[in-house]
Amino acid sequence: MTDRLMMIPGPTILPPEVREALGKPSIYHRGGEFAALLAECVEGLRSLLGTAKMPVLLTCSGTGGVEAMIVNTLSPGDRVLAVDSGKFGDRMGRIAAAYGASVTTLPLEPGRAAEPEQVEKALGQEPYTALLFVYNETSTGVKQPVHELARVAIDRGVMPLVDCVSAVAGMPVAVDEWGLAGAAGGSQKALMLPPGLAVVVLGEKGLSAAAGAKMPRFYFDLPKAISAQEKGQTPYTPNVSLILALQAALRLIFAEGLATFQQRHRRLASACRAAARAAGLDLLVAAESEASDVVTAIRSPAGIDSSLLVKAVAANHDIVISGGQDQLKGRIFRIGHMGAAQLSDLLRTWEAVATELSALGTPCSPDECVSAAEAAYQTAE
Amino acid sequence: MTDRLMMIPGPTILPPEVREALGKPSIYHRGGEFAALLAECVEGLRSLLGTAKMPVLLTCSGTGGVEAMIVNTLSPGDRVLAVDSGKFGDRMGRIAAAYGASVTTLPLEPGRAAEPEQVEKALGQEPYTALLFVYNETSTGVKQPVHELARVAIDRGVMPLVDCVSAVAGMPVAVDEWGLAGAAGGSQKALMLPPGLAVVVLGEKGLSAAAGAKMPRFYFDLPKAISAQEKGQTPYTPNVSLILALQAALRLIFAEGLATFQQRHRRLASACRAAARAAGLDLLVAAESEASDVVTAIRSPAGIDSSLLVKAVAANHDIVISGGQDQLKGRIFRIGHMGAAQLSDLLRTWEAVATELSALGTPCSPDECVSAAEAAYQTAE
Repeated sequence: MTDRLMMIPGPTILPPEVREALGKPSIYHRGGEFAALLAECVEGLRSLLGTAKMPVLLTCSGTGGVEAMIVNTLSPGDRVLAVDSGKFGDRMGRIAAAYGASVTTLPLEPGRAAEPEQVEKALGQEPYTALLFVYNETSTGVKQPVHELARVAIDRGVMPLVDCVSAVAGMPVAVDEWGLAGAAGGSQKALMLPPGLAVVVLGEKGLSAAAGAKMPRFYFDLPKAISAQEKGQTPYTPNVSLILALQAALRLIFAEGLATFQQRHRRLASACRAAARAAGLDLLVAAESEASDVVTAIRSPAGIDSSLLVKAVAANHDIVISGGQDQLKGRIFRIGHMGAAQLSDLLRTWEAVATELSALGTPCSPDECVSAAEAAYQTAE
Repeated sequence: MTDRLMMIPGPTILPPEVREALGKPSIYHRGGEFAALLAECVEGLRSLLGTAKMPVLLTCSGTGGVEAMIVNTLSPGDRVLAVDSGKFGDRMGRIAAAYGASVTTLPLEPGRAAEPEQVEKALGQEPYTALLFVYNETSTGVKQPVHELARVAIDRGVMPLVDCVSAVAGMPVAVDEWGLAGAAGGSQKALMLPPGLAVVVLGEKGLSAAAGAKMPRFYFDLPKAISAQEKGQTPYTPNVSLILALQAALRLIFAEGLATFQQRHRRLASACRAAARAAGLDLLVAAESEASDVVTAIRSPAGIDSSLLVKAVAANHDIVISGGQDQLKGRIFRIGHMGAAQLSDLLRTWEAVATELSALGTPCSPDECVSAAEAAYQTAE
């Protein structure tokens, strides 16, 4: 049993209450006890997602949830615009293409969010069916202006389908107010659970589309799942342990208060950026308004492969942070600050990062990083 | 926290070692620790599945695993013969049809296995691509002669794709020896884990087919998963908690010895059938050779709705058994005896069943049921 500190953008720290729930004996997934459990989780998820619709629990990773959202709302041949904000934006386009959509990509510079005008121009007069984008791009720590991008799409009769995998719980989501056709979240992020559960909700437009969508699906059939959940069940045997743990996690979130819980995320993000600046490092996301609340990507100092830093922090401090993915490999490191992570965890992380950066030849003061983080945490909104 | 006894055909009893593993802190899924964990699980699963190929772990329910097996080996328009042995046999056909296969169904009488000659005749001279069937039909407790049915298919150049969801671990599986093109198993059965993990292996023929199979897939892409596992990873964030628990479960199985573990299943099955006979009840599966090792379906006495029996056993004894599904609803009850279930659990179950049957107006002696079960357990092979 390790007490390693998980400061990656998922899986995250599991609170003791969640771990206890995970270790509970089986309960039968066709009975009143499960139905009550499911009902409580659905209500909690409605709050997190800002919807009166039925959030569907799927036993799969976040990517499975995103796939479910896509294949239930689109048909082969549909034209879609996929905003490529990084690894996960790219993945949305690849999922749609795998099922026969005609995908046009709108590439963003790594570390930049999409401007509504940019999306407007890319949509042009073309008969797009859907706009696919990632709320919080985990690979770069970019936060997209979901509401604005969704409005541009909706104004043109295009469905906004949003990957909220790493945003759900840690960042405000308002499916109904924003008019999203679909949103998908994952368990191993701010929800403080192990991976293995996705939540997908179809908004008004998504539900209408699902009635005629022709991409094939069986395990990921959302209308079937919605019907089953209305009867307190799931179509296929769900991961009951994770749903018990979800109940525990939701209770923790609502005990803290959702607004306070999400404010803590913004404060931690602000603290993390301040520490990076105090270390003399550049943030991958230069614009404050585009910076994620749950993960921060920091450029590696010139000449230092970020993988070495990640390894040293793990080896010498038992703290897990992430490197970059794909073309950002070696060039950035990422710190996740979500779910159960507290200021003390972030401070411990920066102390370790600053120490190891110095050892790698980029002198920086752990104390200054920690002080800057503390100050920013106190003043952040 | 309930101490209810789970005697349904999944989810099953979770041993303390498994529950402890489930409650462990997160480990990072991209690192040496995870790679070592995955390697140990893959080796164990190779033994359970009787294969030198790479068993893929998918974060999903058993149905997702069956879907993965189908969509990775078939193309839309392919002709397949689906043996409808009950709810799960029917489901295989529906999955293939959802992805555009041309499905012919071979319906079996509930409680009967397929005869090789029957399958031979049904395949006829038609250009079928695959034969879909369920090894252990959970809805009826029928065990199919997998080796024989597979041989009939292979002799005609037809790929045998087998749902082994409830068979894996509890019943012998020999993918390589039997020449299966694919097999899929689930976690919440004899593997003694919560639901949420499927294991799928493609045999030689399945792997060749996967190279050209055109049913769309992304989350369930098996060749991609095989490549990732060869590097000690999974393509998408896996349910790490369940994989830690799988390691614990596999260690329990190999500590008992796989042959002894599976013999215990046969003995429990024999004991369960003997108890049913002692109670004067009819088994749904009349032929001993077709009776499952892991679940037994028993016909409800005339005039008694089996749902009432299931409810009474739960309410008065805190033991969970199952009723029938679909057209068997109310007409049968099912007792699961797999994984961590011991003779004492089965005896406790029959004592409860006999007591409640008597209360419902079908007098039968708990003592006689228990004695018959004990005797059969001792003499079974």
